[in-house]
Amino acid sequence: MTQPFKTIALIGKYNSPEISEPLLRLAQFLVEREYAVLVARQTAELIGTSNFLMANLSDIGGVADVAVVMGGDGTMLNIARTLVGFKVPLIGVNQGRLGFLTDVSIDTMFDTVAEMLNGEYSAEDRILLNAEIWREGEKVFSACAFNDVVVGKGNTGRLIEIEVSIDNEFVNSQRADGLVVATPTGSTAYALSAGGPLLHPTLEAIALVPVCPHTLSARPIAVNSHSVVEITITYASDARAHFDGQRHFDLIVGDKVIVRRAENAVRLLHPVGHSYYDMLRQKLHWGEKL
Amino acid sequence: MTQPFKTIALIGKYNSPEISEPLLRLAQFLVEREYAVLVARQTAELIGTSNFLMANLSDIGGVADVAVVMGGDGTMLNIARTLVGFKVPLIGVNQGRLGFLTDVSIDTMFDTVAEMLNGEYSAEDRILLNAEIWREGEKVFSACAFNDVVVGKGNTGRLIEIEVSIDNEFVNSQRADGLVVATPTGSTAYALSAGGPLLHPTLEAIALVPVCPHTLSARPIAVNSHSVVEITITYASDARAHFDGQRHFDLIVGDKVIVRRAENAVRLLHPVGHSYYDMLRQKLHWGEKL
Amino acid sequence: MTQPFKTIALIGKYNSPEISEPLLRLAQFLVEREYAVLVARQTAELIGTSNFLMANLSDIGGVADVAVVMGGDGTMLNIARTLVGFKVPLIGVNQGRLGFLTDVSIDTMFDTVAEMLNGEYSAEDRILLNAEIWREGEKVFSACAFNDVVVGKGNTGRLIEIEVSIDNEFVNSQRADGLVVATPTGSTAYALSAGGPLLHPTLEAIALVPVCPHTLSARPIAVNSHSVVEITITYASDARAHFDGQRHFDLIVGDKVIVRRAENAVRLLHPVGHSYYDMLRQKLHWGEKL
Amino acid sequence: MTQPFKTIALIGKYNSPEISEPLLRLAQFLVEREYAVLVARQTAELIGTSNFLMANLSDIGGVADVAVVMGGDGTMLNIARTLVGFKVPLIGVNQGRLGFLTDVSIDTMFDTVAEMLNGEYSAEDRILLNAEIWREGEKVFSACAFNDVVVGKGNTGRLIEIEVSIDNEFVNSQRADGLVVATPTGSTAYALSAGGPLLHPTLEAIALVPVCPHTLSARPIAVNSHSVVEITITYASDARAHFDGQRHFDLIVGDKVIVRRAENAVRLLHPVGHSYYDMLRQKLHWGEKL
Repeated sequence: MTQPFKTIALIGKYNSPEISEPLLRLAQFLVEREYAVLVARQTAELIGTSNFLMANLSDIGGVADVAVVMGGDGTMLNIARTLVGFKVPLIGVNQGRLGFLTDVSIDTMFDTVAEMLNGEYSAEDRILLNAEIWREGEKVFSACAFNDVVVGKGNTGRLIEIEVSIDNEFVNSQRADGLVVATPTGSTAYALSAGGPLLHPTLEAIALVPVCPHTLSARPIAVNSHSVVEITITYASDARAHFDGQRHFDLIVGDKVIVRRAENAVRLLHPVGHSYYDMLRQKLHWGEKL
Repeated sequence: MTQPFKTIALIGKYNSPEISEPLLRLAQFLVEREYAVLVARQTAELIGTSNFLMANLSDIGGVADVAVVMGGDGTMLNIARTLVGFKVPLIGVNQGRLGFLTDVSIDTMFDTVAEMLNGEYSAEDRILLNAEIWREGEKVFSACAFNDVVVGKGNTGRLIEIEVSIDNEFVNSQRADGLVVATPTGSTAYALSAGGPLLHPTLEAIALVPVCPHTLSARPIAVNSHSVVEITITYASDARAHFDGQRHFDLIVGDKVIVRRAENAVRLLHPVGHSYYDMLRQKLHWGEKL
Repeated sequence: MTQPFKTIALIGKYNSPEISEPLLRLAQFLVEREYAVLVARQTAELIGTSNFLMANLSDIGGVADVAVVMGGDGTMLNIARTLVGFKVPLIGVNQGRLGFLTDVSIDTMFDTVAEMLNGEYSAEDRILLNAEIWREGEKVFSACAFNDVVVGKGNTGRLIEIEVSIDNEFVNSQRADGLVVATPTGSTAYALSAGGPLLHPTLEAIALVPVCPHTLSARPIAVNSHSVVEITITYASDARAHFDGQRHFDLIVGDKVIVRRAENAVRLLHPVGHSYYDMLRQKLHWGEKL
Repeated sequence: MTQPFKTIALIGKYNSPEISEPLLRLAQFLVEREYAVLVARQTAELIGTSNFLMANLSDIGGVADVAVVMGGDGTMLNIARTLVGFKVPLIGVNQGRLGFLTDVSIDTMFDTVAEMLNGEYSAEDRILLNAEIWREGEKVFSACAFNDVVVGKGNTGRLIEIEVSIDNEFVNSQRADGLVVATPTGSTAYALSAGGPLLHPTLEAIALVPVCPHTLSARPIAVNSHSVVEITITYASDARAHFDGQRHFDLIVGDKVIVRRAENAVRLLHPVGHSYYDMLRQKLHWGEKL
């Protein structure tokens, strides 16, 4: 049997010197085990190391067999969007409490990462979204989202009015704080706070979740992930589209936000024994078996 | 082109003489157009007609090319469960307001049914659920459901305690009034009242929706329709399983309710121009385009 | 200053021998401190002690200056309803985790109860409900509730249809699993699971909370505690009224359930430092100060 | 009996010439009936009339016996806040559909207003809120609200972190889109969209309703209207306080928003036969008696 992974990229949380020490130790650990190690350039420069090969994220995408991302869920969202075209699988190492996307603890990372690189993992493909913003017949912006695309009110705090269609069928007009279009991954994030359902990660679905809808009978709806969702701003004093809460674009009346499934998925690697439901129970405080 | 349908079954709402007159008129209309018409035996006897061929539902399943069901959503649920093994497509004609499953109005049924039998329709396959109840290692009951399987408290009004697993993974222990396992079809029924999401009919998913859960962070979850859901009664002063709200079985502590997707789907035929979202807007009072 | 309490009643959870040992120790402790101690007859007989004066609950109501109730919230509900006419203040001692109503732990009860009997406590009056059931012009049942009066579906699992009026004004018709009429005390119990708001214990309000309403725009409403709520069963295959989930009465179509505030309140004594919001944070897992 | 009202102020929706014609007709109608009529200066100037006495809003407050406000609920909110110190009762005349606060239709206003001015009305006092914003020990802003004070996220779309205390007791830390502090009047506005309960107008309560809370067990709570609510911004990339959605103030970390009941209430006059529950049924689409 060939060993599955040879070139390992290490990527740290943006601008977070506190992860430098564990990251360097992990790099050293892997080098000693004769893996080729690439440290993301911005991480290496932050740390100030020159002991390891540095690489840009785009080079990592082309060269690495797997990327270990050290940080929290926010870092994973960011790196997943950046690397989605390259099909590099991701391992998430968490510096604090485990996250929804980061299931290896820094405390046990040597053993766990070694095992995973040795082939003892479960892999899971997660869908992403692509969003385009169209204004007067032209595409003025596009962005990718791993969790969600949110079309929402801006600073004035006044509700917006949107018109939603799915696969070219009119769905409804909504007056609301906003609308979340969430992947299964995003179903445990903002969509959940807004009252949306959990979607199992393997479900080929996206959820549309209204935020504080004026119409009290508005409800979240889950549709096929290959559906095309079109949201038109029909009234707003100010409005914005947000992508994973990390990027945004200001919207004006008449803008159309078109959301569809991204062509590529992101592959997450989990330690053996990882359970989605265990993670839910822990993160959502469902308690244990009675 | 061959005409798609030759033998048409007509099935009326159980014990409802008020549908006899429109049903007979439709039967006459179809005979005049040289279709072979079968009237469900219980409907024919209720009406007291001997002008048309009578057939048992099981014979209808084997012989008819399509069944026109006249009644409300409850009648459709019942007939769908009965005919699911036979792959006879169903057309729903509604005597009152249109339902979620019955989208041809009695007022326009001659034209609409004629067009549909002539091939002008859209077809949609809807999944059903099979539930088995196991007690001390033996299967003591099984039933099919088109909308939902509900495991709930009984007459004492006291919450029950259940343990849920999906695909052999423990999900959680719940203390609640109950748990709804709903198909996309059922997502507009009881599951919706309990706070569940809408699932588009074509989504290969089922929703688990807790009813009045004691744990406030409990949330509905949608999983792959091929998942196997196992619900064990761990505490109850009384408990019951309900199937589409039309059949039920009393449960005791230790019983396991195992729910999986039924092997066959039900094919619904809709008039051309039917829109799921139009129907939602109308039934849920979402209002029209602003 | 006179000592506020001289005669102390001790009442244990129904049929629970496991509380006998701590209850006897508390009785002994109080006798040594020269309090007159009455042990509720059913508790004394369960324990099999004749070292202390026994009394029926009704005698306790007439004689005791304060009653210490040892058990859980369910025991408190029961004793509060029984003693409400007598104005005996209650102290709740909990055998397990602290409850919403029982805020003295068995582990610290000697010190805490001694302090409280010595006057170091905060007192809080809680409202109760009185419900009458009227059938064809006659009152056929009446009961008291500390948490809630629930009008709900019975064993068939089918929704009921009710008509609600408040202070003789028609409010709405509802098709639902049921309707909860809750006191502020009950707002942390079943009403909360059904989606109702928390009502601060000192708020002179009751909440009407629909359970799984068919009308999606139905919402909980809080009204003045002096309002009279009238619920008429307009359709049901079976229906029941529940009182604190401990008593019930079967309802038929046409029955009216009339709910009004009980004449007397129950006085709860809390240890100094007791905080309602602390208790909420702990019981609802809100987490601590971030 | 003396006639209750002699001097009638007429106030139109801000910057809305379309109400000039009905307002002038109402003014003429009242003059003919020998009422003293004052037209709000900004309304009169917009209309361009000099046939009636003009008055500033502050003068109206001092002189008028009643003010007829012509517009929608937004206009009523604005005028109520402005006139709250003066105890001038308000009649709301609606140009479009009836609102929650405006219950006289333009179509029937001559008859209805005449009757009301003749004493045939029901009066209802509604509480308002006063909010102060404190920064580093200094009060930097204060404002009044009839519906609600909302502390919410700003333009970045990122949740804020707040600490809530009531009557100097710590309640909880929340990470959320925001928190609504609503009067009973505001309980049918934004608070309702955010999942809050309805509070009957006569209930001496305010509701705290979290908006998209990160903690899933967060729930709305209703407390005594005389409670003092203190909200401290503990983390935010940007945050804002909104008052009835009509005024706002930018907040920074460390700011305290202190909300208490305003000293004066606003008196609303309703036509005889007005019913709060009728209005709810109509506005919330609850349907009629089944």
